[in-house]
Amino acid sequence: MRRWNGWGDDAVSYHVPERAVRFLVELMGPGTPPRDATAGETLASAPPAHPLEHALVKGDAVERLRHARGQSFPDWVALRSGRIPAYPDGVAYPTSEADVVELIRFAQTRGAQLIPYGGGTSVAGHINPQPQGARPVLTVDMSRMNRLLRLDDASHLATFGAGIAGPDLEAQLRARGYTLGHFPQSFEYSTLGGWIATRSSGQESLGAGRIEDLFAGGRLIAPAGALELPPFPASAAGPDLRHLALGSEGRMGILTEATVRVAALAGRERLAVSALFLPDWKSAQTAVRQIVQAGLPLSLMRLSTPVETETTLVLAGHERLIGALQRLISLRGVRDGKCLLMLGFNGQDELVRTTRGEALEIAGQQGGVNVGRTFGSQWYKNRFRTPYLRNALWELGYGVDTVETATTWSNTSAMVEAIENALHQALVPFGEQVHAFTHLSHFYPSGCSVYTTVLFRLADGPGETLARWQALKDAASQAIVAGHGTISHQHGVGSDHAAYLPAEKGELGMALLHDVCRRMDPEGIMNPGKLLAA
Amino acid sequence: MRRWNGWGDDAVSYHVPERAVRFLVELMGPGTPPRDATAGETLASAPPAHPLEHALVKGDAVERLRHARGQSFPDWVALRSGRIPAYPDGVAYPTSEADVVELIRFAQTRGAQLIPYGGGTSVAGHINPQPQGARPVLTVDMSRMNRLLRLDDASHLATFGAGIAGPDLEAQLRARGYTLGHFPQSFEYSTLGGWIATRSSGQESLGAGRIEDLFAGGRLIAPAGALELPPFPASAAGPDLRHLALGSEGRMGILTEATVRVAALAGRERLAVSALFLPDWKSAQTAVRQIVQAGLPLSLMRLSTPVETETTLVLAGHERLIGALQRLISLRGVRDGKCLLMLGFNGQDELVRTTRGEALEIAGQQGGVNVGRTFGSQWYKNRFRTPYLRNALWELGYGVDTVETATTWSNTSAMVEAIENALHQALVPFGEQVHAFTHLSHFYPSGCSVYTTVLFRLADGPGETLARWQALKDAASQAIVAGHGTISHQHGVGSDHAAYLPAEKGELGMALLHDVCRRMDPEGIMNPGKLLAA
Repeated sequence: MRRWNGWGDDAVSYHVPERAVRFLVELMGPGTPPRDATAGETLASAPPAHPLEHALVKGDAVERLRHARGQSFPDWVALRSGRIPAYPDGVAYPTSEADVVELIRFAQTRGAQLIPYGGGTSVAGHINPQPQGARPVLTVDMSRMNRLLRLDDASHLATFGAGIAGPDLEAQLRARGYTLGHFPQSFEYSTLGGWIATRSSGQESLGAGRIEDLFAGGRLIAPAGALELPPFPASAAGPDLRHLALGSEGRMGILTEATVRVAALAGRERLAVSALFLPDWKSAQTAVRQIVQAGLPLSLMRLSTPVETETTLVLAGHERLIGALQRLISLRGVRDGKCLLMLGFNGQDELVRTTRGEALEIAGQQGGVNVGRTFGSQWYKNRFRTPYLRNALWELGYGVDTVETATTWSNTSAMVEAIENALHQALVPFGEQVHAFTHLSHFYPSGCSVYTTVLFRLADGPGETLARWQALKDAASQAIVAGHGTISHQHGVGSDHAAYLPAEKGELGMALLHDVCRRMDPEGIMNPGKLLAA
Repeated sequence: MRRWNGWGDDAVSYHVPERAVRFLVELMGPGTPPRDATAGETLASAPPAHPLEHALVKGDAVERLRHARGQSFPDWVALRSGRIPAYPDGVAYPTSEADVVELIRFAQTRGAQLIPYGGGTSVAGHINPQPQGARPVLTVDMSRMNRLLRLDDASHLATFGAGIAGPDLEAQLRARGYTLGHFPQSFEYSTLGGWIATRSSGQESLGAGRIEDLFAGGRLIAPAGALELPPFPASAAGPDLRHLALGSEGRMGILTEATVRVAALAGRERLAVSALFLPDWKSAQTAVRQIVQAGLPLSLMRLSTPVETETTLVLAGHERLIGALQRLISLRGVRDGKCLLMLGFNGQDELVRTTRGEALEIAGQQGGVNVGRTFGSQWYKNRFRTPYLRNALWELGYGVDTVETATTWSNTSAMVEAIENALHQALVPFGEQVHAFTHLSHFYPSGCSVYTTVLFRLADGPGETLARWQALKDAASQAIVAGHGTISHQHGVGSDHAAYLPAEKGELGMALLHDVCRRMDPEGIMNPGKLLAA
């Protein structure tokens, strides 16, 4: 059963080793677990719903609660404290495009707002009803539009209902000999439509590409009509409207079906992951930059700073494995400041062999020590377990959030430093220490993503906890904008980043986005407050 | 000196071998070379210009003539016959962004229309003043905004003035150890800004990507203000506005500078091209599809139908080489219906070796016979000479045009057949035969481009010649649209394809494009009639 106020399946938990708890206490002081509100207490405080009578709409309190919040830190504070500022008034589960058209018409006649809902895994406030809204809010849960509609074998194109979740999509494809290869951290719950609407990027983006590269076309049902995006392999016929649907975040309409570019499964059943340690942060960055700029067809890289490397090893808790690793790398002359680098390969055999050889050679020139595949396999096996750590940390009294951007190589070091510094400074006024660490996990010849995790102590009450988070979020976002990074490489804009969007789109760019949304949704009923602040 | 009424440098000509002339006569009957108007005759008939007095504007007749037409077939008919329906009233050569801003302001105050002009190589009518225009027309020739402005070595990013032409751009990059790798057929004259505005694709798109992949960001100066597009390596921050500038065709403003993703030159100095013959069209298509779907990092493929293969060999006129080739492939059991396949490789040594081995193996499984690198090297050396053939054929009394699209693999065969059939049928009412042949030259896992060349006899007068062309163009365009192809894979929309754009963008999509253009250019002064028919 999926947790209603935390991450994932309630049968799965992440054990934090004793040594790791001591590590956290040393860094930030002891945590005080807050008392979470029960579902019953929370439901009792839910405001009454505006009536939204329609055969497709459910108005019961559990449905409303289950769709009230996503997975951002403020979402967690709301859910765990039971103080949820706004609920949808109803939840609809369309099963066809006709249902979607009908729900939009219904919303128009009732003056209601619509929130498209995929897997509810947003960490930027994409699916939250706006507080203080005077109009009824109808959440449209797309989970029942989850079928494989068409498969074009020759063209490696698969068309799905946009509500299909990651595991179902991969299962359907694998049964037919294909894979999409899109594995965001949220994979277990997030949906194809959500990936497209938020421009998601998967762990294997280096090989498979971002969702932009995989989304060939589809149908977006807007209040103003249907926007059909044909799945051409490429086109020079004017501006590419797919790139308006990508990142549209529910403001323009509801994506009902999407055609994606799939790959043959043979050779791609699983990723082979090698782990290396680089002697320091500078040479580690040089290695990954040179590997990606050499045009080697790897499927994944993930490079941790020294602090993240240490934290990962402590939290992973494989004491014996770590002891062995430590001895091995220290024997080879790598001591403090080492950086963990994971390299992932799949695809055609010979190509993998060549790619691995060349990548390891480049890393070796920077002092990289290959520790083999055991650690990499462990990471690969557990890669969707990491978000469960949030539950465990919360229950120890610690909050965790991640901030992320992308910037050019010449700017990467400075950006990492600026973000980590901003986070370290942000809670000084609160008399609190934070623990912040970073990895680079999406790579391009011109730059990479920067992904920083911050741990901090939860406060006595939800208001104070939220104030701490807000200080961290503001500081990091300002550092990103000031450092000429994008406000999001992979989480999207939602409501949490909307204030920072004008810094990168500019005045004219923002006007264009408003124009496009207005054309698609003249009455402004689609997902208000997201993407565009007003 | 660049030809004013044909392709390229007037010191370069393409010799059509005697055997090839006989081949053309057999197919279409003898050609009757039309008498071309002289530049003097043409200039004498130019209408007087609307006065456009400004320090940056030149109004002399030679400048106006040199910027009146591009390289489409109707452009050639106009230039060769001396009957040019419309001239610009003046030509400006800005040298800075301030000049561009000033020219837009000047146009606004004078009620003039602006046509951004790169290299004048459009084959779809992008830079032509509209006939019957009542407002003065100012062509803005960007050729003096052609400097390398910034080079970010670590990030492999180079920023250029958008007016830089292909050879200058590559020369500047190569002097610093880099290459862009973008080589459209028009490379010798076309410009970076033109590539971006028309979504150009180069011969090595399989390796380097299309211009969409290479264009990281830049500045577009619109009548409504400046649109700054930051060069993030990737972003999830909402819709990607670069994809509005890409394909904007001068309707939204003038691109003044562009940042492109470059690659290290080492290993990419030149392409190694292997030539193969496949036994028939079906197995040849299977080979290229399997190669691209295997994810092999080739830089180029080019596959000709049997008819194009024969035509290429005849027109190339390397009698001895061809004789040897014919004997070789016939010895290996490949006879009639053979298809020429070129495979191009560059980049990191080991990767090239592996890629070549795997690609040749796949082709071999389809009966491909590798004839080595001599023929491929010849093609590579002469790859920018091909457009000169247009001059030679015209002077023999034959017209030549190309039509192109992209479609999915499952649709490729049918599309080739539909286009060639449409072209063969189109001149039946004129009692004329055409010679049509096709190659596939841009490859994607989901499909490819289809590029068809048509030869036909010029008529007695320009009106009748134009009527023949129009019949061919209409027939091919209708076949493309009916067959669910894009109206352009690489030539853009311009005026010649504008009527077919709604078929793929849809009603709502067209409204979005109009909204975007209106926001950027509220008075509608930018390049009217292009991209959007009205």
